[in-house]
Amino acid sequence: MKYDNDLFLRACRKEKTERTPIWIMRQAGRYLPEYRAIREKSDFKTMVKTPELASEVTIQPVDIIGVDAAIIFSDILVIPEAMGLDYQMVESVGPRFDKVIKNHSDIVALDVDHIEEKLQYVFDAVKLTKEKLNNRVPLIGFSGSPFTLMTYMIEGGGSKNFVKTKQFILNYRDEAHLLLDKITEAVIKYLSAKIEAGIDAFQIFDSWGGVLSKPHYLEFSLKYIERIVKEVKRINSEPGIVFSKGVHHSLKEIADAGADVISLDWTTQLSCAKETTGGRCALQGNLDPVTLYADDEVIKTEAKRILENFGKGNGHIFNLGHGILPSVDPAKAKLLVDFVKEESRKYHE
Amino acid sequence: MKYDNDLFLRACRKEKTERTPIWIMRQAGRYLPEYRAIREKSDFKTMVKTPELASEVTIQPVDIIGVDAAIIFSDILVIPEAMGLDYQMVESVGPRFDKVIKNHSDIVALDVDHIEEKLQYVFDAVKLTKEKLNNRVPLIGFSGSPFTLMTYMIEGGGSKNFVKTKQFILNYRDEAHLLLDKITEAVIKYLSAKIEAGIDAFQIFDSWGGVLSKPHYLEFSLKYIERIVKEVKRINSEPGIVFSKGVHHSLKEIADAGADVISLDWTTQLSCAKETTGGRCALQGNLDPVTLYADDEVIKTEAKRILENFGKGNGHIFNLGHGILPSVDPAKAKLLVDFVKEESRKYHE
Repeated sequence: MKYDNDLFLRACRKEKTERTPIWIMRQAGRYLPEYRAIREKSDFKTMVKTPELASEVTIQPVDIIGVDAAIIFSDILVIPEAMGLDYQMVESVGPRFDKVIKNHSDIVALDVDHIEEKLQYVFDAVKLTKEKLNNRVPLIGFSGSPFTLMTYMIEGGGSKNFVKTKQFILNYRDEAHLLLDKITEAVIKYLSAKIEAGIDAFQIFDSWGGVLSKPHYLEFSLKYIERIVKEVKRINSEPGIVFSKGVHHSLKEIADAGADVISLDWTTQLSCAKETTGGRCALQGNLDPVTLYADDEVIKTEAKRILENFGKGNGHIFNLGHGILPSVDPAKAKLLVDFVKEESRKYHE
Repeated sequence: MKYDNDLFLRACRKEKTERTPIWIMRQAGRYLPEYRAIREKSDFKTMVKTPELASEVTIQPVDIIGVDAAIIFSDILVIPEAMGLDYQMVESVGPRFDKVIKNHSDIVALDVDHIEEKLQYVFDAVKLTKEKLNNRVPLIGFSGSPFTLMTYMIEGGGSKNFVKTKQFILNYRDEAHLLLDKITEAVIKYLSAKIEAGIDAFQIFDSWGGVLSKPHYLEFSLKYIERIVKEVKRINSEPGIVFSKGVHHSLKEIADAGADVISLDWTTQLSCAKETTGGRCALQGNLDPVTLYADDEVIKTEAKRILENFGKGNGHIFNLGHGILPSVDPAKAKLLVDFVKEESRKYHE
């Protein structure tokens, strides 16, 4: 076997594992003092763009927390930037784009021809991380979904009600599809090159697909996720994970779109998702991230509830239902990982 | 018939109507210049506590927009205040409580014995509004759900991740239930007195039930909503509407809890909710509020999609999936109301 620990990859393919693998969304992040030590010396974007730093924080949770997979430290907004929209990461505010997409000519001006060269630093970070990991665990790569990336490109940053984005898709439907087309093309190039650089699986973060009604989600988000998954997998065998946060209404359609793994927030039960998708996909998740602020015994009880809800069998990757929060005590994350590693054995006998 | 227009009440009971009734959540609000004119002279809490002002803004959308029901202008936080937790409404921030619930003795200190006398101003506003409405349309009263009120009482205001509330229910389960018990008792008294004062239906706003996993939603939110609905309806025939925003996973359980009407945000399709609940409840909603920023023809297309999705038959109350946003043009709201009134006739032939 290629990896010392390939539980994560086997679970993605619903193959037999002796226990449930676990990793944590945003595991290379601010809750770790070791991450903050690096972050103190470099700003966020410098970390993203410096392979040495990105690979260092990518590996930290493998060493410190003992997760079963690493995920390359990066940012979903590298894609809009490579397409020509520069952004700043403003402390305690979030990303800010100087220029936003307002009309047809803004979309035409976006560049999708130089994705691979502009994002070479990501591929270098992947290669370096693979070397350092030395086959201990697999490495996950990721991208934002076209719809999610589009919201930042139109709103110019985070948003509460996504008024500009929704106005755009409602009033300028053709232009919205043109924009989504171009982002999709960029994402396909990006993920394909990332796989070439060495990632073992890819996750599509559709952080904002859940703000849409079902018909709009299918038309403006899932359609493009499907194209990415199918195109990337046409020439690669690496499993694709789809995380459309809040999208409870289209799990069957996400399975139809070819996702190998569906990642679920904490509001959809794994048992229910298993039924809806007819067990076609592996499932990832889905402990409420806030659980890690509870007492140790409560964390165990809640983790047990997730394991029980999925039940016996393969194809479950334990994770939080969303990113770990920055003020969580790393000891709590470690406790969760240790508990799941041990407790899950009985579901794989 | 008691009312010039009782379409809303008939729809709540799934009785035959000649068209679909419509009202708009937060219809007495900042998007109306007539509301802002009053708001300029009085702060929010003064408006809530002055029956003359509360009744005036309650009636505005009936006159200006032509909705089929009025909803008494008030605030869900009158309950925590009447229980002993004073709050300020801070401009462009939201509510701020000086004192919050931290432990058992804070809960014991909460007062539920003087709800009726402390909230007399609400009942006076209801009576005055009923006089002014002069039986044109029914009047809806409302309350926050115990869980939603609890989040404000623990967090001290709005919250992003509800860390304190979730810590409280996870680590201090018995105290959480004690607190929810007391709030529930207060809400039952409040809604019963509101019905006595003249409201024709009541809506429970569970704005934050959707941040919980299903097991926690059932234990910490729906259980108490059920107690309220059953107790209030034990002695009153007025229909009860339950709006648990984001709670896509427990529609059957909400129907089991005795809701006459389930109000849905825009992420759950009416057709799907109808199937899940076996058509037992009327359904309210569920146009994405941001749709009102679109071009006129797009608003009509999207409204039509909602009507078509519910399909032919009775028991649909048109509404937005959440409150109308403050920067919406009132002409757009009027356009929606006029369109639904006309277009919906074909679904009731």
